[in-house]
Amino acid sequence: MTRPGDERRTQVLRTAVHVASVEGLEGLTLGRLATATAVPKSALQALFGTKERLQLAIVDHAADVFRRSVLTPSEDVADGLPRLRALMAAWIDYLVIFDGGCLFVAGASELDGRPGPARDAIVEAVVTGERLLLRHAVLAKRLGELPPESDPQQVVFELHAVLLKANHDRQLLGRADALDRARAAVARILPAGDLQENPPRTSE
Amino acid sequence: MTRPGDERRTQVLRTAVHVASVEGLEGLTLGRLATATAVPKSALQALFGTKERLQLAIVDHAADVFRRSVLTPSEDVADGLPRLRALMAAWIDYLVIFDGGCLFVAGASELDGRPGPARDAIVEAVVTGERLLLRHAVLAKRLGELPPESDPQQVVFELHAVLLKANHDRQLLGRADALDRARAAVARILPAGDLQENPPRTSE
Repeated sequence: MTRPGDERRTQVLRTAVHVASVEGLEGLTLGRLATATAVPKSALQALFGTKERLQLAIVDHAADVFRRSVLTPSEDVADGLPRLRALMAAWIDYLVIFDGGCLFVAGASELDGRPGPARDAIVEAVVTGERLLLRHAVLAKRLGELPPESDPQQVVFELHAVLLKANHDRQLLGRADALDRARAAVARILPAGDLQENPPRTSE
Repeated sequence: MTRPGDERRTQVLRTAVHVASVEGLEGLTLGRLATATAVPKSALQALFGTKERLQLAIVDHAADVFRRSVLTPSEDVADGLPRLRALMAAWIDYLVIFDGGCLFVAGASELDGRPGPARDAIVEAVVTGERLLLRHAVLAKRLGELPPESDPQQVVFELHAVLLKANHDRQLLGRADALDRARAAVARILPAGDLQENPPRTSE
């Protein structure tokens, strides 16, 4: 059951995420959002209340988009290395959804020194994504798809590094090849074949 | 010749860079800086003029620190792979100099959607650092220290990715192992030995 207020709220949030990805979460006041959406400030106040609750709603909405664009589509892919590859491919594509790039990267830099619910929600989103990568990196190692000497935590560190850099180069430097560089980096971090020389290890 | 005003300016900038690395460049007004430094706002106005000129002065000061901490100390190291390694080692150490981590990473996210002199100065600093990495990656390949099939641009993409991720994990997630993970990633990206199996190629 969707109420009319919910639909309007979602519509406003769709615009708000784009604006926040470009201008930051701190600068996005109800007044600025009223200008961007042509919805009166009083109506926005009724929908979101305070600026802090607006920030939280934006982060929640961005997390929804991330789940639908990156996490859900890869759910049917086989666990381990194939899933890692599918997650990274979708995650790289997702970097261009918002005008200003990934809201969590922008928000992470902006809010890392400012404790509060919006910062907590960003940490939660980042950690959720990383945890899923880690789960499948651990599986990939146990299944013999990653070399036995590999460190799943380190693999995830390097994979996520590539995403941050692709977003950085695209947004700050306007580099058109950033996503292709990211794909090439992922191909270098994750082994090409199924590592048949390394028999599956089930003993750990 | 250093005038007394210059010394005071430098002292204020030292504090300002820390505050900006935590709270962002946009939020750092002359009033906020007056509170942080206990220097009257009128004196700050005389030293820096507008908020925009203050932002520029902060970015310039941070670029100075970066040059002194990362670029200059590695100048005596042999060109190519040894220089790449020395630059990356110093760059990783530099990430902890400012309270809020690297000002350019924070500033990049904050200002990437806001054209202006401060954004241009950050782009300039980032591009200068990357260009030096690229120069030595190209040299390393020509000297046979990187495999002949390697792509220097891609190597630099992956090296800088590691720096962004280390800063991100330290600042947003408070991960104490971020710098060690970064060092491990650099060791994986750059070959361990001097690749003596690949004879130097001087024909390109």
